[in-house]
Amino acid sequence: MNVGIVGTGQLGWMMINEGRRLPHRYFVLGEPGGPASRVADGAFAPEAYRRFVDKCDVVTPEFEHTDLRTLRYASRQGKLVPPMGALTLKLDRGQEKTFLRDRGFPLGEFHLARSPEEARRLARNLGRAVVKASRGGYDGKGQYYLGGPRPSPEEKLPAGEFVVEEYIDFDAEASLLGSRDREGRKLFHSPSFNVNRAGILLSNEAPCEDLGMRRIVSRLLDELDYVGVLAVEFFLVGGRALVNEFAPRVHNSGHHTLHGSSISQFEHHLRIATGLPVPAPVLFRPSGIVNAVGRELEGKLPAELLSLPETHTYSYGKAEVRRRRKMGHVNLTAPSRKVLRERTRRVVRILYGKDPSRFFGA
Amino acid sequence: MNVGIVGTGQLGWMMINEGRRLPHRYFVLGEPGGPASRVADGAFAPEAYRRFVDKCDVVTPEFEHTDLRTLRYASRQGKLVPPMGALTLKLDRGQEKTFLRDRGFPLGEFHLARSPEEARRLARNLGRAVVKASRGGYDGKGQYYLGGPRPSPEEKLPAGEFVVEEYIDFDAEASLLGSRDREGRKLFHSPSFNVNRAGILLSNEAPCEDLGMRRIVSRLLDELDYVGVLAVEFFLVGGRALVNEFAPRVHNSGHHTLHGSSISQFEHHLRIATGLPVPAPVLFRPSGIVNAVGRELEGKLPAELLSLPETHTYSYGKAEVRRRRKMGHVNLTAPSRKVLRERTRRVVRILYGKDPSRFFGA
Repeated sequence: MNVGIVGTGQLGWMMINEGRRLPHRYFVLGEPGGPASRVADGAFAPEAYRRFVDKCDVVTPEFEHTDLRTLRYASRQGKLVPPMGALTLKLDRGQEKTFLRDRGFPLGEFHLARSPEEARRLARNLGRAVVKASRGGYDGKGQYYLGGPRPSPEEKLPAGEFVVEEYIDFDAEASLLGSRDREGRKLFHSPSFNVNRAGILLSNEAPCEDLGMRRIVSRLLDELDYVGVLAVEFFLVGGRALVNEFAPRVHNSGHHTLHGSSISQFEHHLRIATGLPVPAPVLFRPSGIVNAVGRELEGKLPAELLSLPETHTYSYGKAEVRRRRKMGHVNLTAPSRKVLRERTRRVVRILYGKDPSRFFGA
Repeated sequence: MNVGIVGTGQLGWMMINEGRRLPHRYFVLGEPGGPASRVADGAFAPEAYRRFVDKCDVVTPEFEHTDLRTLRYASRQGKLVPPMGALTLKLDRGQEKTFLRDRGFPLGEFHLARSPEEARRLARNLGRAVVKASRGGYDGKGQYYLGGPRPSPEEKLPAGEFVVEEYIDFDAEASLLGSRDREGRKLFHSPSFNVNRAGILLSNEAPCEDLGMRRIVSRLLDELDYVGVLAVEFFLVGGRALVNEFAPRVHNSGHHTLHGSSISQFEHHLRIATGLPVPAPVLFRPSGIVNAVGRELEGKLPAELLSLPETHTYSYGKAEVRRRRKMGHVNLTAPSRKVLRERTRRVVRILYGKDPSRFFGA
């Protein structure tokens, strides 16, 4: 089967690498030079999207902020996974939040603002708030913290619409990967604790307590009439899980499934997209990752990291290192949660020293 | 680093796929169209071996029956892993057996024959014997069973030299993957039980009892002044392990390390070849494989196999299906040895029905 991946980033790169064992070929659409272009069986430039879709039996985006023409064309041909509705919902945060609230999912308080002024006013009413641009934001981009001890400079708020969310003083952040196949069968990976820095995932570890997350993701998969792997991010507060947001795709917080699990999120998604069966995922061993943000896994780093037990480094091979840019990640497994946490700390220290902020800072 | 793989078969294909996470690029030398050519960063035709070696920082054969010019040229440049001595020893079975006997490794009785006539005479003296062509034999090729209940037709014995081995009525076959780095540090995977049919691996499962195998492989790695992953095959007889043969490379019986282990044999070998550290391998879960011999993993097979829990199919994508040809394999993990064995049986049944012999027959 010919699988088309829209996007040439690291998610597509890992999907192809994990998909090599399956009897498929992989084609990508996007800017040349991305990690996925280097390993695909063929690459198409964005303007060749029709030829790309026509060549493929199934088309899946590695990332939702992508060219809509391609997704619409693939959807009309019946080749798009996940369905168009779940993807377009993600293009507007206000729309996403409203969808979730209208269907009774547990969320923090939020309000929609049609201008920066309205956003500032609504934020003041909430006391401490996170103001998020409705469009184009991910990995902390377009997010502003107002009213708290470390507010973002207000003048930064650009023109546009916003979602103004109450600031949630969470105990922890977590995420859960679920999937749904074309017959509506649902499966789940183990939920993970996530540690974010400046809106970007620093590290995570699985398993963590469920706290109702499976039930929520299960219902969301049905509400979205979803096909494929879906990632949902949560705030854990006082023993409850509140939905933060979802991602209609494989997700950074699911990279831990590459090792220590019976199936990776990438193979899982590909199998569903291509109509192959997926038995329930099994976590063999506590697993986690540490992201390499703003720094390349090169020089002495790989040797230092790989000398730790049960560690794997993933170098995405991006052309240019930038602050806040994900250049790679480190997978870890361990015989216990405690040892996993110790090893995670050690990897963070090796990558960032005592202060990750110079790599994660805006 | 640029890694050069001599050969374009499935071992090179898996080495590249498993090596994608490392910060290396992969080049292959060999006939075009092989599985590894399709995923490499570049492919060289056999006659371009000098350009290939010059381009690469390290060169490793996926298979020992390969073009010696390339290996010699790479060795002269100090780029060859494993060392030339271990590779050339494997080109002649008589030489290999003599090397092992001279160093006191536990072996079955054997004799060298310079002609088919001498081989027949020596075989008659042993009663029941396996006569093996000294050169070019692997996967049961060039092997003749004499004097037993199902002897090979004697007229098949071609001209050439032979090793005449006593037939060992083993309790089981097993193998062990060991490794040695440039500083002489040695590591071991879990040994596996192997089930062969007509000289070709049908299935295997790890772990199995050690019975002295680690000690033997450890000494062999030193005797060969080895660098990289080495596979040693054993006969288990009455609680003792006798060396059958070794393979100076990753090996079919090590494919189980692709799932359920902290590191696969492929990444293990690549890390040593490129000077990256390897901590001691950990087996997370009983693991094994079933080879797809003489039949393509296509049609309904992938869906049927992948519906079993903790199963992965590997399709090598070879151009042509032939009897006795390895077209792919199935990885299995399970919560216990017992369940692994049940699942293995089921996979064998799905692949071959009640009679594998029509796929394994000569």
